[in-house]
Amino acid sequence: MDSRFRGVIPPVATALTADGKLDKESYARSINRMIDAGVHGLFVLGSSGEVAFSADERRREIIEAAVEIIDHRVPLMIGCIDTETNRVIEHARQAKELGADAIVATAPFYALGGQAEIERHFRLIHEAVDLPLFAYDIPVCVHTKLAGDMLVRLGLDGVLAGVKDSSNDDVSFRFLVDANEEAGHPLVLLTGQEVVVDGAYMAGADGSVPGLANVEASGYVRMWDAYQAGDWETVRKEQDVLAHLMRIVLVPEGVQGFGKGVGGFKTAMALLGVFDTNQMPDPVLPLKGENVKRVAQILREVGLNPVVSEEVVSESAQIRSL
Amino acid sequence: MDSRFRGVIPPVATALTADGKLDKESYARSINRMIDAGVHGLFVLGSSGEVAFSADERRREIIEAAVEIIDHRVPLMIGCIDTETNRVIEHARQAKELGADAIVATAPFYALGGQAEIERHFRLIHEAVDLPLFAYDIPVCVHTKLAGDMLVRLGLDGVLAGVKDSSNDDVSFRFLVDANEEAGHPLVLLTGQEVVVDGAYMAGADGSVPGLANVEASGYVRMWDAYQAGDWETVRKEQDVLAHLMRIVLVPEGVQGFGKGVGGFKTAMALLGVFDTNQMPDPVLPLKGENVKRVAQILREVGLNPVVSEEVVSESAQIRSL
Amino acid sequence: MDSRFRGVIPPVATALTADGKLDKESYARSINRMIDAGVHGLFVLGSSGEVAFSADERRREIIEAAVEIIDHRVPLMIGCIDTETNRVIEHARQAKELGADAIVATAPFYALGGQAEIERHFRLIHEAVDLPLFAYDIPVCVHTKLAGDMLVRLGLDGVLAGVKDSSNDDVSFRFLVDANEEAGHPLVLLTGQEVVVDGAYMAGADGSVPGLANVEASGYVRMWDAYQAGDWETVRKEQDVLAHLMRIVLVPEGVQGFGKGVGGFKTAMALLGVFDTNQMPDPVLPLKGENVKRVAQILREVGLNPVVSEEVVSESAQIRSL
Amino acid sequence: MDSRFRGVIPPVATALTADGKLDKESYARSINRMIDAGVHGLFVLGSSGEVAFSADERRREIIEAAVEIIDHRVPLMIGCIDTETNRVIEHARQAKELGADAIVATAPFYALGGQAEIERHFRLIHEAVDLPLFAYDIPVCVHTKLAGDMLVRLGLDGVLAGVKDSSNDDVSFRFLVDANEEAGHPLVLLTGQEVVVDGAYMAGADGSVPGLANVEASGYVRMWDAYQAGDWETVRKEQDVLAHLMRIVLVPEGVQGFGKGVGGFKTAMALLGVFDTNQMPDPVLPLKGENVKRVAQILREVGLNPVVSEEVVSESAQIRSL
Repeated sequence: MDSRFRGVIPPVATALTADGKLDKESYARSINRMIDAGVHGLFVLGSSGEVAFSADERRREIIEAAVEIIDHRVPLMIGCIDTETNRVIEHARQAKELGADAIVATAPFYALGGQAEIERHFRLIHEAVDLPLFAYDIPVCVHTKLAGDMLVRLGLDGVLAGVKDSSNDDVSFRFLVDANEEAGHPLVLLTGQEVVVDGAYMAGADGSVPGLANVEASGYVRMWDAYQAGDWETVRKEQDVLAHLMRIVLVPEGVQGFGKGVGGFKTAMALLGVFDTNQMPDPVLPLKGENVKRVAQILREVGLNPVVSEEVVSESAQIRSL
Repeated sequence: MDSRFRGVIPPVATALTADGKLDKESYARSINRMIDAGVHGLFVLGSSGEVAFSADERRREIIEAAVEIIDHRVPLMIGCIDTETNRVIEHARQAKELGADAIVATAPFYALGGQAEIERHFRLIHEAVDLPLFAYDIPVCVHTKLAGDMLVRLGLDGVLAGVKDSSNDDVSFRFLVDANEEAGHPLVLLTGQEVVVDGAYMAGADGSVPGLANVEASGYVRMWDAYQAGDWETVRKEQDVLAHLMRIVLVPEGVQGFGKGVGGFKTAMALLGVFDTNQMPDPVLPLKGENVKRVAQILREVGLNPVVSEEVVSESAQIRSL
Repeated sequence: MDSRFRGVIPPVATALTADGKLDKESYARSINRMIDAGVHGLFVLGSSGEVAFSADERRREIIEAAVEIIDHRVPLMIGCIDTETNRVIEHARQAKELGADAIVATAPFYALGGQAEIERHFRLIHEAVDLPLFAYDIPVCVHTKLAGDMLVRLGLDGVLAGVKDSSNDDVSFRFLVDANEEAGHPLVLLTGQEVVVDGAYMAGADGSVPGLANVEASGYVRMWDAYQAGDWETVRKEQDVLAHLMRIVLVPEGVQGFGKGVGGFKTAMALLGVFDTNQMPDPVLPLKGENVKRVAQILREVGLNPVVSEEVVSESAQIRSL
Repeated sequence: MDSRFRGVIPPVATALTADGKLDKESYARSINRMIDAGVHGLFVLGSSGEVAFSADERRREIIEAAVEIIDHRVPLMIGCIDTETNRVIEHARQAKELGADAIVATAPFYALGGQAEIERHFRLIHEAVDLPLFAYDIPVCVHTKLAGDMLVRLGLDGVLAGVKDSSNDDVSFRFLVDANEEAGHPLVLLTGQEVVVDGAYMAGADGSVPGLANVEASGYVRMWDAYQAGDWETVRKEQDVLAHLMRIVLVPEGVQGFGKGVGGFKTAMALLGVFDTNQMPDPVLPLKGENVKRVAQILREVGLNPVVSEEVVSESAQIRSL
């Protein structure tokens, strides 16, 4: 197992200016804040890092900024997510050239096939780009679940370094941990959940990739430290607070999916003064009005008091007429 | 909260003779074995108790046998599961008359509606039958997920005594626990999982309803006791063994769904001498041949050695020609 | 092929009094109206006939009423729909005893398996009850699609007399027609659609089972007659009007599924004076207020003018407080 | 309605050499064959045209080849399919620059939202690129169904020129046709089906986009001509043959999804001498052995006799070792 990729490795949210450009200053503020909180790595261009909303040039810009800001303080994983093998390989080559420590790829999507093609997909990526490769299991986005026996086989064959599990299927994750253990632990197993990280640690996860750490990383770091120390009551208490905080992605009304989830994160970050705006990528609109107030209320309930007013955040993203 | 329904409350598998009748002797052996292991209650006519395969007369027979065998040693919950309100009420009245301590109902199924109709469904059942009512959240069978806010509201209104969560959605379960706590804990929250019970306890579950306890109840009781004592390392170790044992529902080949899951349980029980046969209800066929050997192998891996040979179990259910 | 079951065979909606009892007078009015319009058969206790909301005693009552009213004027198909084989067989025996000309069964539901178990399910029903057996393919309710090759095999083996296809999958229906033809047309193939019956006739369907015929049967009869005469332009024109009329199940707001679909039918029937109320079975509530007006508006758009006012219909079902 | 885009507009399959490059010679042979058969337009870089397997450079290459080969003989629609608005706009600008007559875009995918965001997506594309824009409704790939009322509204607003419906939901298509008619027919409505085109024409479709036309375009042209002449019996007969031919995508065994569907098309085209190989894009493997024989058998059943042997086709794609 490649032990560089253990611990808390947040998927980094992407900061945008009001007119939709990359906001490097806010981006640096957020990354530095997470590193200062003690995270063990960072994952750029994941689903919550709006990889699916980033054309090639934007992807390059984001990676370059991340590499420069992080400056080797923690390992950097780069999401190379696209519909098919060759496009993923193009992204992976760019990621390597720009300084990635590991790459992360999903199953192919849009045109579906079977597990045999997914296995071949990972083998072709690994053959083409010499970097630790993580499989990203995220059926809600790609509509295929990665089979556990395939993942372990690819781990034993040296194709995969690990798995980022965002399948919201804790039963299959438990079986994967059991099978990985039986095989000698070839894979680093990271959970992509926010509110059941404690259960994943109980199961034996090697780390977590919680989007909510963009809002509050220190709780996740304390949970990890407690896990390493065997202090399960602290693990549990930290998780309870973070589970309540996660309501920021439930309370927005009249909006669904990415706009609700990442929209809740970015709004909280703007309220906390981390991001200058809560701008979202086209065609998604930022939260405003009552929805910003609902997010602020949850922050207060867990003692994270906003330093920017709801009104200012609500107007921080100058929305185009369309 | 009604504290009678805390702890380990297995859903009781139904013993059948080779010709498909209720096998009361095997049924008593299994129930007594679980009570001896220390379970805190029993749930009869759940999904794994083949409620969906039991016509009215069979349901009555099963309840009568369970009431007689249990003889008030532990509380008895009865599944009153059917497509619509009035049929559920008929089952609930019978359950009460025969001696149930609580009843368990799902959302209506076959003809779907919205959450408003599900809420009215539970209110009408509660109005008709004066027994503690548990909502059974099992979207894999009824294809609707029960909304957390509705459940807490029905708890506060005294309609629901608790929830049996078999939704395999640990994230929503965590949010439900959080909302239930905030409301003053009106609902008893039971997880229906087998391999992530430790995570549910971390989240604050009041108990578990693991089908696997038909095969091995003592591990679940030890896990509960450790949870109550705050001994999380023991919780974790017990869960690890039980997670591995649960492979008995993964290893059968060429069979899906109920025939694989409950088929794996019954086959293990026959190998352990608890049930005389591994017979399944029509139209499902029992496991045989290599599949019985696969189950036996898993039992051995966790130190539960079969006392009946694979060949005998494989032939224990005289299969009709059709 | 059993030619008694060709043509237009509406699934009969069940008339309820305000207090939820079977309204035999309204039921007779509706059945007689459809027979007078020239339908070729009737299907009682289908999905829109609220089979899933009918406990055993209600099922008997409905069948007895239907048998008496129809009095052999057209063939009578009875839905014997339940979660598993033995309960279906019980219903089928009752249906036969009470006078059914054919029985209709779905795949088992709630506890799912594979196609092998579904095939055995149909074989066991056929073995137990000597009546023409139709397979009802309705994945939206039972969450399994019946495989075309299995259906044709069961047709060739004399197990199935036909298929009622409500799968909303016209592509698979076309392939089924093709395979049935190649096998010598053992199966009567009926489409359960309302708005694409013309396409099913083009494909070679032997008839239709349109719920909308409860509202307007004569259009479906004219479409059938035109199909038999090869007058496709008339088929098309009739379908266009009926497709527009079907909007009665789209326009109700704030209600989903069965309450919207069958709720729209019953409301239209009450507006047309066929049913005395638009009452729905528990836990579903009847349409009222603006939703009744929306349904009335669609009726007027196709020249079916309400004879009962929207206000009277809106109050026709005395709703219980709960 | 823009009448340039009526009739039969096949989605063009992409010809690959054994080593995975664009095979321009085979591509020209196929396009010329379809134009000679009388098709009314061509759709390049659709789902079956492997848009999801084509990185940017490959997309450019395909469009350039298509523009040159077609040489304005029929209108050319280009699929601009990607996860999000800005990437779609980039593709659309390139398509316009290279000579597209119309562009085709799906809803955003991977990161899902609601209908409001999808509507904004289409408005932003239309604002950015001045070409007729078709909405591509393909939930099997993007996992969102386009709402009919939104489509008609975008038609009335001049944002959309039409819809390519590959939703396999003939009921919603019928409702869409009805709503479009009521609105004055702003949208060109094309069905993406192969085996129920007759039903779509009955409903009033303005044309079809059948992938199977790559194998046999002349039947689809005859069906269209018969439709225009009101000769429904001919429509029906042509569809029957084409429905049987479509079995080429059902008969391959041990392969799923794209590899089975487009794999079946390409294999038939290789057997007919249209394509030099049946090569598939990574990570999909081409059909071989028995699967090639199964496809050849179906071709023979409808009188399309292979001119290349099964053995030669089976070896036509030199498969890489991985």
